[in-house]
Amino acid sequence: MSEAPREIEELISLMAKLPGLGPRSARRAVLHLVKKRALLLTPLSGAMQKVAETARECVSCGNIGTTERCDICTSEKRAIGEICVVEDVADLWAMERARVFRGRYHVLGGTLSALDAIGPEDLGIPKLVNRLKDESVTEVILALNATIDGQTTAHYIADELEGRGIKVTSLAQGVPVGGELDYLDDGTISAALRARKSL
Amino acid sequence: MSEAPREIEELISLMAKLPGLGPRSARRAVLHLVKKRALLLTPLSGAMQKVAETARECVSCGNIGTTERCDICTSEKRAIGEICVVEDVADLWAMERARVFRGRYHVLGGTLSALDAIGPEDLGIPKLVNRLKDESVTEVILALNATIDGQTTAHYIADELEGRGIKVTSLAQGVPVGGELDYLDDGTISAALRARKSL
Ligand SMILES: [Zn+2]
Ligand SMILES: [Zn+2]
Repeated sequence: MSEAPREIEELISLMAKLPGLGPRSARRAVLHLVKKRALLLTPLSGAMQKVAETARECVSCGNIGTTERCDICTSEKRAIGEICVVEDVADLWAMERARVFRGRYHVLGGTLSALDAIGPEDLGIPKLVNRLKDESVTEVILALNATIDGQTTAHYIADELEGRGIKVTSLAQGVPVGGELDYLDDGTISAALRARKSL
Repeated sequence: MSEAPREIEELISLMAKLPGLGPRSARRAVLHLVKKRALLLTPLSGAMQKVAETARECVSCGNIGTTERCDICTSEKRAIGEICVVEDVADLWAMERARVFRGRYHVLGGTLSALDAIGPEDLGIPKLVNRLKDESVTEVILALNATIDGQTTAHYIADELEGRGIKVTSLAQGVPVGGELDYLDDGTISAALRARKSL
């Protein structure tokens, strides 16, 4: 492809690496950006630079924030006795949008997977266990996707936490089989959290 | 939405303005960008800034380039006798990918539309007529979308150019009814250009 100037081709090929955009939708997006240079392209470039400079993983929970420990971990309004374990930051955001959970989180960054050789250490599960030792946690809520890997991971964590005097629950009613948290509406997530059951 | 830091929410809301990305795919894209900060986010921000600084409309044809007159208009390899009229830069790129047209272009930036009150001046049709006076053009190829507005525009331009001793043709065979150029494969565009007919 050499129909556009080099600078624009470079932008198209980078945009095409975004999830949800292929080469042709990346081209359309870039043309749109060039047309809306002042209104969209320049602000977007600036916003990306700002995020690149400021965004970082929370050292406690793995959430994305702009400080060493994220706003949720440092908030005095959040219960320190409950930790909600999620696969991904997108799932944490989905939980927050539902506005029913007032504790803190632990972001695994994935699920156990024999196929992809992802083990407990890769997911920071030992780090989660250490948090439980240091912090006065009374309940761990496993809010993992209702996929096979998600449920395998949930059971692995439940086994790891057994005998520590910590209640381990999981989202239950409302999560459809095979469904992914990030695709559910807020009401479904709320119902699932309220009806959580002991494992 | 306040689940993510302000900087990230701002980036998400700007990304959601891109064609093809809604609020939820924008969130996914931004999370992906934060994870691939060095590999994707920083380069993308830089590429956008570069395009914002360098991209401009060619004063002759309306193509997007980085110079006052674009590479196609200034190329000595392109025939000066043929001008291909397209609605949009995306269509110009689609024509270039087909690699069969070796003349130059005129980008209208849209089609005539009574509904949207878009008249000939808005599309630079008088500018096209002036180009034909100044440049030694022998053929104008109308490569407009096979939509009602596209064909109305084609006929308007054909009428405007009548009696000037310029051959006016249009892409014909191969363009499906209701189809848009930018969605066609290169072979279809090639066939349509080769089988172009006089209006
Ligand atoms: Zn945190
Ligand atoms: Zn040009």
